[in-house]
Amino acid sequence: MSKISVAVLGATGPIGQRFVQMLEDHPYFDVEGLYASERSEGRRFGDVIKIRDHEFSEETVETKIRTMDIDKISKNVRVVFSGIPSDLAGPTESELAKKGVAVFTNAGAHRMDKHVPILIPEINPDHSESIRQQETYGSGGYIVTNANCSSTGIAMPLCAMENEFGLEQVFVSTYQALSGAGYPGVPSLDAVGNVVPFIDKEEEKMEIELAKILGGYSKAGFEPADIMVMANCARVPVVDGHLESLTLKLGSSPSLDELSSALSGFRGEAQSLKLPSAPDVPIVVRAEKDRPQPVYDALAGSPKRAKGMACTAGRIRESKGYYKMFVLSHNTLRGGAGGSVLNAELFKARGLL
Amino acid sequence: MSKISVAVLGATGPIGQRFVQMLEDHPYFDVEGLYASERSEGRRFGDVIKIRDHEFSEETVETKIRTMDIDKISKNVRVVFSGIPSDLAGPTESELAKKGVAVFTNAGAHRMDKHVPILIPEINPDHSESIRQQETYGSGGYIVTNANCSSTGIAMPLCAMENEFGLEQVFVSTYQALSGAGYPGVPSLDAVGNVVPFIDKEEEKMEIELAKILGGYSKAGFEPADIMVMANCARVPVVDGHLESLTLKLGSSPSLDELSSALSGFRGEAQSLKLPSAPDVPIVVRAEKDRPQPVYDALAGSPKRAKGMACTAGRIRESKGYYKMFVLSHNTLRGGAGGSVLNAELFKARGLL
Amino acid sequence: MSKISVAVLGATGPIGQRFVQMLEDHPYFDVEGLYASERSEGRRFGDVIKIRDHEFSEETVETKIRTMDIDKISKNVRVVFSGIPSDLAGPTESELAKKGVAVFTNAGAHRMDKHVPILIPEINPDHSESIRQQETYGSGGYIVTNANCSSTGIAMPLCAMENEFGLEQVFVSTYQALSGAGYPGVPSLDAVGNVVPFIDKEEEKMEIELAKILGGYSKAGFEPADIMVMANCARVPVVDGHLESLTLKLGSSPSLDELSSALSGFRGEAQSLKLPSAPDVPIVVRAEKDRPQPVYDALAGSPKRAKGMACTAGRIRESKGYYKMFVLSHNTLRGGAGGSVLNAELFKARGLL
Amino acid sequence: MSKISVAVLGATGPIGQRFVQMLEDHPYFDVEGLYASERSEGRRFGDVIKIRDHEFSEETVETKIRTMDIDKISKNVRVVFSGIPSDLAGPTESELAKKGVAVFTNAGAHRMDKHVPILIPEINPDHSESIRQQETYGSGGYIVTNANCSSTGIAMPLCAMENEFGLEQVFVSTYQALSGAGYPGVPSLDAVGNVVPFIDKEEEKMEIELAKILGGYSKAGFEPADIMVMANCARVPVVDGHLESLTLKLGSSPSLDELSSALSGFRGEAQSLKLPSAPDVPIVVRAEKDRPQPVYDALAGSPKRAKGMACTAGRIRESKGYYKMFVLSHNTLRGGAGGSVLNAELFKARGLL
Repeated sequence: MSKISVAVLGATGPIGQRFVQMLEDHPYFDVEGLYASERSEGRRFGDVIKIRDHEFSEETVETKIRTMDIDKISKNVRVVFSGIPSDLAGPTESELAKKGVAVFTNAGAHRMDKHVPILIPEINPDHSESIRQQETYGSGGYIVTNANCSSTGIAMPLCAMENEFGLEQVFVSTYQALSGAGYPGVPSLDAVGNVVPFIDKEEEKMEIELAKILGGYSKAGFEPADIMVMANCARVPVVDGHLESLTLKLGSSPSLDELSSALSGFRGEAQSLKLPSAPDVPIVVRAEKDRPQPVYDALAGSPKRAKGMACTAGRIRESKGYYKMFVLSHNTLRGGAGGSVLNAELFKARGLL
Repeated sequence: MSKISVAVLGATGPIGQRFVQMLEDHPYFDVEGLYASERSEGRRFGDVIKIRDHEFSEETVETKIRTMDIDKISKNVRVVFSGIPSDLAGPTESELAKKGVAVFTNAGAHRMDKHVPILIPEINPDHSESIRQQETYGSGGYIVTNANCSSTGIAMPLCAMENEFGLEQVFVSTYQALSGAGYPGVPSLDAVGNVVPFIDKEEEKMEIELAKILGGYSKAGFEPADIMVMANCARVPVVDGHLESLTLKLGSSPSLDELSSALSGFRGEAQSLKLPSAPDVPIVVRAEKDRPQPVYDALAGSPKRAKGMACTAGRIRESKGYYKMFVLSHNTLRGGAGGSVLNAELFKARGLL
Repeated sequence: MSKISVAVLGATGPIGQRFVQMLEDHPYFDVEGLYASERSEGRRFGDVIKIRDHEFSEETVETKIRTMDIDKISKNVRVVFSGIPSDLAGPTESELAKKGVAVFTNAGAHRMDKHVPILIPEINPDHSESIRQQETYGSGGYIVTNANCSSTGIAMPLCAMENEFGLEQVFVSTYQALSGAGYPGVPSLDAVGNVVPFIDKEEEKMEIELAKILGGYSKAGFEPADIMVMANCARVPVVDGHLESLTLKLGSSPSLDELSSALSGFRGEAQSLKLPSAPDVPIVVRAEKDRPQPVYDALAGSPKRAKGMACTAGRIRESKGYYKMFVLSHNTLRGGAGGSVLNAELFKARGLL
Repeated sequence: MSKISVAVLGATGPIGQRFVQMLEDHPYFDVEGLYASERSEGRRFGDVIKIRDHEFSEETVETKIRTMDIDKISKNVRVVFSGIPSDLAGPTESELAKKGVAVFTNAGAHRMDKHVPILIPEINPDHSESIRQQETYGSGGYIVTNANCSSTGIAMPLCAMENEFGLEQVFVSTYQALSGAGYPGVPSLDAVGNVVPFIDKEEEKMEIELAKILGGYSKAGFEPADIMVMANCARVPVVDGHLESLTLKLGSSPSLDELSSALSGFRGEAQSLKLPSAPDVPIVVRAEKDRPQPVYDALAGSPKRAKGMACTAGRIRESKGYYKMFVLSHNTLRGGAGGSVLNAELFKARGLL
């Protein structure tokens, strides 16, 4: 079976580099080219790598970055993985979709578009149907987004609890990693020994996106779930892995064991279809008193291709009718490039590519 | 007017060192000696300093640490400032009080004792009356505690809002500094590039102490305030300054301007009595979109003696009937040694010493 | 006596901000305006501050940044303190000097010009004579540079040893702070938990500048000192304070006590003239086994105006005919803005302004 | 072929944990037990792990730590890998050797013993002969040490240069990682945003050990190489990977290409015997202007079992008759546990086990 030709946009940034990582030796996809702005034309991929925990193949390291050219790209590939900044992503991704390209993107530009899904295969695989209502669908082109990195991190636990117990209120505070801000991103003088309690539009995104992700879809559009999300977001001096504290009002009163089992037993279509980048266990529950921690848990997930694709929950507690826990997920893998690669795998498995 | 003779217990730790700092050239108090465990007997104070932002006087630097000896100390001083670990503090402080010493302590051991106040002069100065019901009062000895560092940080904003608007629910997540764990405290291998979402008993302390602080006192004992506090606590790689995210349910619906004014206009007995270590403005409200930050705001407060005694609030927002903000305060000054020094100043001003 | 009107160029960067700090309430100088690129026009100085250890006056905080306009500046001020990038500094400073302005600059652009001194008042005050040979001297304008931050840090100890014992070889490795790279400067993804063993042209600068600083001057030009300097430079995740390891071949064989005394006893014209920003003791020698450390020693120096203007030497050792020590100095105070302010003070005291 | 039974001493520390990692699925060795002090008796190995970059097998994670008992251990195993502190290692390792155990140790206690080798298979495999002169050899027991982590890091490049060009003087400054100090090791208050220019006895060790490693051995004992080493050692806030700056006086004047080739072409007996943990290329030379860096290069080495066993050299420069470079190696793999495992592999291959 021949592989599907794909391109990576924004290949020089932290998300783009994670796309390249996830696509190395991929069973479905074959990377046609790595693209970025003109400034990077001709640079070796190896010279821009800022990923500390993955060793790229010699071939990948030697690949030359090329300047994005929408016409050429749309002729050469069926799928584009996009890690470009949101302002650029808006028009670029629309144009690619018009030209018949299936766009799987980490950018926020189209996330709230009427028929564009924020897809997480474990949660809302049927939202993929929304692409049929996109104007460009006739050309074979469409846009599928992965959620914001902070939303993704907690979406699976929230879904598991919504399914089992009902979910009413979510109070979340984030401890977000530096890689979420791209490169060069956060200046070191702001990061070393400090916390910055502000990430532009992040709280608003979380409060809106989670309701869309956990809600329903019909041809009339998306119907947000009736869940109140209240977010406070901050940046901490951690390289990879968003930690989030959760205080939750559920619709019923499970024991901590029941709650824990609902999380660790959670499975979705990504698992039943055995998608290549899907983790066997999407939510790892840790019993230690001091986990999850970014440096130990960011790369949770097996098999190997799914490292960084599981989220980790820990410190599950109950107090005065509320439940509390900490959840961690990898912001540029599950919460970024990995999310979109998994979405494309779902599309392949469902025959939508 | 002659000064009151005081001793510092646990002078080698981060809290003890802040006691020494706050007591340098103090208008009311005169340091008789610095005490610690036998292990430190004879060491120069200068050799144990781990404070990065204060220059101690040559005399202080050259002071020799002495081994704690309760009999001698109780003969020599009227007041003890205690920065010793909680397990040691329990019996030690009781014994000192029995021997007629006024103990102002940062330790948690006696905080929930029936007639021991958790005192914050801006909030509950009348709780000082509780000492009259302590068994040791006849000898002139008693115990007064400052709150846990995380509780203190938000107590003044909570009090200001309770006073003006009523306060029903407090959802708080902490971003706590390393100095809160003492020295050697958190191993660097756990801290660098990491967050640890666990601080032993911290969440329980916050949930209980804040209700006691904000509640009432009568001879029958303390009556906790009817405020629900839900806390998630984590340690971040910051040296000084606890940042906390707050989501609040108030009893009424002030505008953001009214809320901000209630905070910045908050004053208490510490201010009306012009206590030496009291900040002119106890709650600094910052308008910038990305403040408070530990490295810029931990030392908020004026005059000079009150640096680190004000807390800073910022990012005040409203969403779906809840109010959100970030609050920062210095965990070893206002939330530690400074808190107890201010308490002792209140006692002096009220004629209780 | 009326003060001399001065302007600060590049006021939004770390060096520029330190200029503003050093010039607050300065006995000789009065700040006419803070200048930067057009991008910052109209911003409050308070909104760009990235200094963690100094509290600016309310007036300074509220000052509005203005766009650099050479014509206007040269009409309004006698002195310019320049913290602009080197490529911009080249033509800008030349033009200012042509228009009669005395330029004291941190930029490297003119440091190796034939008659431009790299001035350190403790070391080579007579190099100030070189300005008389600058082409612009007739107009009253000239350029005086402070040394590169890494060179400055060790220049005083090297001078003290050269004077007393002769100095033949200097093997130096640097542990340089992040603030030396400006703002935004080093991306946090490169800094957290990492060391970057490369700072563009830094080693070359050290090897050339130190010889010029320690050498002689006659109307024919500068005569570099005959001292071999071998440098290895690296960036470490420290906010302020360059630490440097030194291995030295001296011309004679002093005892460690003699060496230590030569350092701590070192004084120069800055001290004899009692310049306002000159530290009483330019080289602080510490006896502790683990000092100097950036977080404790970067701000060495007294009186208050000279904080950060002394360098600190420690761990003085001897082995196989070589001497070893660590030296620390503040890279944006003594090694940056403070250096140029001290130079201007020398010029004032010598009647050259 | 049955595997050789081995025990790990000090299994709870950073070095011990790396021993466990290196011995997972080892082709020669089979781990009989993990040992530590009585304090850790019965703890799951999984609960003490502080390694961020290796995922241990489920079986390893569940292994219970046992209290060291020399009698029992010596009956059960042929080989002990020792990661215990030096003061304890002295008597413990002697006793084990007396009882017939082959001890491969990271501890410094016996490194300078008359017939104990500091073995690096790429450099001095014949030093293994020295064990025959150890008093305990008759019992089958002996002690073999790996070098101090800082010495190891540069030993292979120094050997390569000594072989090809002669080596006269080595000026080295270290940027050492936190994991080198064990756990809890360096307190975070000393590490965050700081550099500590002192590591007890480290400089002395480097200056003595390197001469022994690079020297000769005859039955009369070790003959140190005639190479002057001058070291300055400092601790930086990096988790793993010692970076070291080198300034070198060679015996001849190779071009930079010749020097680079001598390094990258260096091979030793570890490679010719294809020892399991030996890197194919022991010295990786990087051409980038800003490498090696701890976060990217600490785990250099292939095949997979040899990750962290290669050192990386970069920024090779020449100036005034000296050569300069930066070298990085993994302090707890090549410079610790990995070094001793490689030594034991050499012994196995040479038939000495």
